[in-house]
Amino acid sequence: MIVVPLIERKRDGGALSAEEWSALIAEYTAGRIPDYQMSALLMAVCVRGLERHELAALTDAMLASGQRLSFDGWNVPRVDKHSTGGVGDKVSLVLSPLVASCGVAVPMMSGRGLGHTGGTLDKLEAIPGFRTGLTLAEAKTLVVQLGCVLIGQTPEIAPADRKLYALRDVTGTVEAIPLIAASIMSKKLAEGLNGLVLDVKQGSGAFLPRQEQALELARTMIALGEDRGCPTVALVTAMDRPLGRACGNALETEEAILALRGEGPPDLMEVTYALGVEMLLAAGVERSRVKARKKLENALGSGLAAERFEKLIEAQGGNPKVVEDPSVLPQAQAVEVFAAPRTGVVTRVEPRTVGRGIVAMGGGRLRVEDVVDPTVGFVITVKPGDKVPAGEPIASVFAKDEAGIRVGFETLQRAIVIEDRQVERALPLVSHRVTSDGVEELAPRTPGRAPRAAPRA
Amino acid sequence: MIVVPLIERKRDGGALSAEEWSALIAEYTAGRIPDYQMSALLMAVCVRGLERHELAALTDAMLASGQRLSFDGWNVPRVDKHSTGGVGDKVSLVLSPLVASCGVAVPMMSGRGLGHTGGTLDKLEAIPGFRTGLTLAEAKTLVVQLGCVLIGQTPEIAPADRKLYALRDVTGTVEAIPLIAASIMSKKLAEGLNGLVLDVKQGSGAFLPRQEQALELARTMIALGEDRGCPTVALVTAMDRPLGRACGNALETEEAILALRGEGPPDLMEVTYALGVEMLLAAGVERSRVKARKKLENALGSGLAAERFEKLIEAQGGNPKVVEDPSVLPQAQAVEVFAAPRTGVVTRVEPRTVGRGIVAMGGGRLRVEDVVDPTVGFVITVKPGDKVPAGEPIASVFAKDEAGIRVGFETLQRAIVIEDRQVERALPLVSHRVTSDGVEELAPRTPGRAPRAAPRA
Repeated sequence: MIVVPLIERKRDGGALSAEEWSALIAEYTAGRIPDYQMSALLMAVCVRGLERHELAALTDAMLASGQRLSFDGWNVPRVDKHSTGGVGDKVSLVLSPLVASCGVAVPMMSGRGLGHTGGTLDKLEAIPGFRTGLTLAEAKTLVVQLGCVLIGQTPEIAPADRKLYALRDVTGTVEAIPLIAASIMSKKLAEGLNGLVLDVKQGSGAFLPRQEQALELARTMIALGEDRGCPTVALVTAMDRPLGRACGNALETEEAILALRGEGPPDLMEVTYALGVEMLLAAGVERSRVKARKKLENALGSGLAAERFEKLIEAQGGNPKVVEDPSVLPQAQAVEVFAAPRTGVVTRVEPRTVGRGIVAMGGGRLRVEDVVDPTVGFVITVKPGDKVPAGEPIASVFAKDEAGIRVGFETLQRAIVIEDRQVERALPLVSHRVTSDGVEELAPRTPGRAPRAAPRA
Repeated sequence: MIVVPLIERKRDGGALSAEEWSALIAEYTAGRIPDYQMSALLMAVCVRGLERHELAALTDAMLASGQRLSFDGWNVPRVDKHSTGGVGDKVSLVLSPLVASCGVAVPMMSGRGLGHTGGTLDKLEAIPGFRTGLTLAEAKTLVVQLGCVLIGQTPEIAPADRKLYALRDVTGTVEAIPLIAASIMSKKLAEGLNGLVLDVKQGSGAFLPRQEQALELARTMIALGEDRGCPTVALVTAMDRPLGRACGNALETEEAILALRGEGPPDLMEVTYALGVEMLLAAGVERSRVKARKKLENALGSGLAAERFEKLIEAQGGNPKVVEDPSVLPQAQAVEVFAAPRTGVVTRVEPRTVGRGIVAMGGGRLRVEDVVDPTVGFVITVKPGDKVPAGEPIASVFAKDEAGIRVGFETLQRAIVIEDRQVERALPLVSHRVTSDGVEELAPRTPGRAPRAAPRA
């Protein structure tokens, strides 16, 4: 196909037709359009944007490049959650078995960590034996049996997205809202869902830090989902500090297990419940937010959610004992306590610095092919707004050796800011709820202590 | 080198430093930056533009990627002319020996035809034996001996430009004024010039049709030349109709020879003289436009210019008899006369249609690797504004067979428009003179007959 006139049209601010997007994506996926033409087109999209009909056509073309999960004739409602990613975000590990134990199927496809943000697959693979690389057929069987599955993007799902994402990553064309939205939704729409809940992070540790960007991404994905028959709702949540206490793969898996046993940190639980409520409402198994929340709390308190996670781990080849005894997880060779270097108020716990520290310690990726050490990371027990006396333990560093401990200490010295003043700004844990009807502000940004949990609905 | 942050900065409207441009071009030329990264960057430049200091740095980096012609210690002034290209533009073939015969050296590096526009090298290679692929050393020897040379871009000159141009051609990143200016000037500045005269075409057959674009390109190139110690001036000339009568390689070479013998069509002569005057002024061999023009007319009238062309052809391996006897040139197998299909006024001779017709007949290129048939083309003896009776011969078609003749006839039926009204608009042959001081309008756009020659200065 003749590509240059299409690139030129997008360069000059014009729009491509659905047929043109469809042909472009099919030919590129088949290797008949070279990377250098596609990267020029992607850059033109970054700067010129996409019209709504173009975004729909691009997403459909990416979706059509692969297979879909089909649950024809099976009438259990299916809802998934997607997070735009952050530091300490282990919500998927808690939410998936929790929502499944409330009668809603969760066919969840997740990603790996890249840059300063972690990935659900890496956290799961910290569990000895856990396999995230199931086939679509295996995944479907588990969803029907257990109500949930936790897998990676299979080769059958949206191969166009896989190829495009790899190219965007090396051509400065990642941070374009239409391209991000098309990438996420082309995979999520392949899951055969009845509803989708988005966790759009905002704040310095988020992929798109500014609130306007977070809201625009939410609106864009909601429009795509709704137009394709998948009711979609988004919560905007805080990523100006890590979520929960644990940051690092095995440490986060441990914290997720604690959460399923009723011992999770309050901020993690609040975000998990808020998203879970939306999932139960989207599935239609509850109509009242209060009842949905109660149902989730009961599933957790009764041990049903933890039990479901146990079964899921066993079904995916992992050692299910980990739920009873998290020491089954691989353990760091070196652990040291980090004490407050001075007396004062914690004004910042900078998630990007923490995430980069984990990468520097070997627990994350700068390149897709990097191998991750699951044991390294941090447990940070303070939040912005906390008063600390000098010398009090406020974190632990988990590393593979003394050199790693030094990197961890340097990281925390930069990430945790202690000052003689109050916190100026901290984002509400859950600030906005976005639907196709518009944006609802749930909690205004207020000065003072960072909320450990949002006010109850 | 880490390229993605630089691409992102340009994508977001920022500027790169001279060191960054220098490293980018050096690494790309050495094959250490992949095409897909460079094409994304080029697209960002197309949409975001380049600041003046960036354009200078890019041009310098492209210039520095190769060698330069050096004439140290040789005190004959050296001036070149560059045209942005059009249909029927054989000015270089006339101007180069003409100006050389006036005591100004012209080390001219030209290009090949691509798309609807022709190229000087293809026209020269219509002469049996003519070699345009000289080395830099051979070219320098000829400049010193004869005052002129007519060659292609040698592999030693601006290899970065060669590689970048090939990439731009297939990624929709050709029509960006800063990239066009950098490409042209990186080659011209390698010629070791004391001055440069630009022929910037405007009108429907020009690379950049609109006058504002033509003027912006002129100003951009002038700034680049002046900043690098090469005084540069531009004339904006008409390309809303072919220049002269002949269109097609061997036919244009023949017309150029006729022009050197004093038998050229008036519009071709006027543009040639206008550019020649600027070259003599730039070289400092004349200070008055009137005297410069007289000098050129004398060189032509005395036969000195034609004699210089003869010597040049011989030195470059061609058959010099062609100047006395143009029938030495390869001849088309089929020739037919095209008559006016109706009575009326010629309102358009559309150069783009004519140029595309030549390509369709095998006389031009859609791809760089296409082989050109030098014999095919048109001689069109009417200009916009001419009144013609039905049935009068107004053109000849030169083709390789009857099928080619049919293509040629169809081309002329579309290209030459005859109506019952006056010409609404025709561009002045030479409309503007642009220097670093500003733009001087030489002749306003007027209704009526297309000027065959501009008013005398």
